[in-house]
Amino acid sequence: MSLAEYFPVFEKLTAEQQKKLLAVTQYREVKKGTVLHDGNADCLGLVIVHEGQFRAHMTSEDGREITLYRLFDRDICLFTAACIMRNLQFDVTITAQKDSKIWIIPPVYFRELKETSAPVANYTNDLMATRFTDVMWLIEQIMWRSFDKRLADFLLEECSVEGTDQLKITHENIANHMGTAREVVTRMLKYFQNEGMVALTRGTITVLDHQKLEELLEL
Amino acid sequence: MSLAEYFPVFEKLTAEQQKKLLAVTQYREVKKGTVLHDGNADCLGLVIVHEGQFRAHMTSEDGREITLYRLFDRDICLFTAACIMRNLQFDVTITAQKDSKIWIIPPVYFRELKETSAPVANYTNDLMATRFTDVMWLIEQIMWRSFDKRLADFLLEECSVEGTDQLKITHENIANHMGTAREVVTRMLKYFQNEGMVALTRGTITVLDHQKLEELLEL
Repeated sequence: MSLAEYFPVFEKLTAEQQKKLLAVTQYREVKKGTVLHDGNADCLGLVIVHEGQFRAHMTSEDGREITLYRLFDRDICLFTAACIMRNLQFDVTITAQKDSKIWIIPPVYFRELKETSAPVANYTNDLMATRFTDVMWLIEQIMWRSFDKRLADFLLEECSVEGTDQLKITHENIANHMGTAREVVTRMLKYFQNEGMVALTRGTITVLDHQKLEELLEL
Repeated sequence: MSLAEYFPVFEKLTAEQQKKLLAVTQYREVKKGTVLHDGNADCLGLVIVHEGQFRAHMTSEDGREITLYRLFDRDICLFTAACIMRNLQFDVTITAQKDSKIWIIPPVYFRELKETSAPVANYTNDLMATRFTDVMWLIEQIMWRSFDKRLADFLLEECSVEGTDQLKITHENIANHMGTAREVVTRMLKYFQNEGMVALTRGTITVLDHQKLEELLEL
C-alpha cells in the first residue's frame, strides 16, 4: 500500500523528485457522495484511487446528466488537475460512488513534475489518451447504438462492477448515467422484464438472464 | 513560410534537435479529397497544416459519419501519429477538404522527440487537450442541443470558414458532418427556407438572414 506502487511513473523519477513527491502527496478518505471536482474552477490535483469508485459526468443546463467514465482501484484522475492544462476546457463533475481512499498530488507540484520530467509528461499523455478513448466510445454509443443495447450493456457492466445480479439502483440514477430521461429507462426496463431478462422490485433490478442480454448486444 | 514558425515548440528544442527535425520533416501538397489517415492502423506522423483544410470524422459500421473537428492553417494533427500513443484507441478518418500543403514529422522521430523532450511531451498534451475539448463540446451538442440549433450553428460556421453566404454543399454532406440522415437535414433546411433564413437551389444553400439564425441559437 504505497504510492510508489500505485503511481506507475514513480520509478522513472529522480531520487530527489521521489522524496518530494512522497512529502507533498496527501492521503485522504472520502465518503460516498463526496464531490471531488465540479467544473473547471476546482483544482484539487492529480488523484490516484487507492480503493473505491468514482464517476465522472457532465451536466446540461437543465440538470440532465451523462456518465463519461468511472474510476476504480489504481485508476488515476487527471481532470481534478485540469487547471494546470490550459487547453482542457470543459466542465466535468467527479463524485465518489463508494467510500473511497485516495492520494492527491497537489496541482502546483504536479505541474512542476510534468514540466521538468518527460516521463511524467508522457504519462500524463497516456492518461489523457485513455479518457479520450472512453469518451470516443461514448460518442459512438450515443450516435449509433440503440437504447436497448446501451441499457443491456450498462446492466451487465453494473453486475460485473458490483459483483452481484441484484442491483440497488434507481431508474433515475440509470437515466443520469446514460444521459436520458427516467421514463425512457423505465419503459425499456419493463420491456426487459416482459422478456424475462430482468425482474423489477422496489429499489432493485435483478438480472435474471445474462445470456439473453448478451445476445441483445450481438444483434 | 518555415517550419520553425508553424511548430510552436521549435524554439524550445536544442540546436541539434532543431537540425534533425528540419532534416527529417517532409513537405507535401495534397489534393482535395485525399485521405490522410484512416483508422488506427495508418501512421503518417505529426501533420502541421501550412495551408488548407481537413476534416476529422468517425464512421459507423453502416457508413454514417460525424465530423469531430476541422483543421485549418497552422493547426496540428495529432491523430495521424496515433500509433505512437498506445492508449489512444479509436478510429478517426482525416480527409483534405481543400487542396492543402502540409509538413509531416515522421512518427519515429516524433516519438523520439516526445520521449526525450519535456516541452514536446507537454505540447503534445496541449494538442490532445484541445481535441478532447472539441469532442466534449460535440457530446454536449449531440446530447443536449436540438437539431435546429446545431444546423443553424453549422451554416453560420460554414459561411465564416468559406467567406461566403453561398454554400456549395449537399444535404448529404451536411448529414455526414452532423451524424444524421440526409432526410433530417433536408426537412430542417426547408423549414429554414420557409422562415426566410436560407434559400435553397440545386447544389447551393444561400444564407439570407444571419441575424435570424443567430437568434435561433439564443433561444
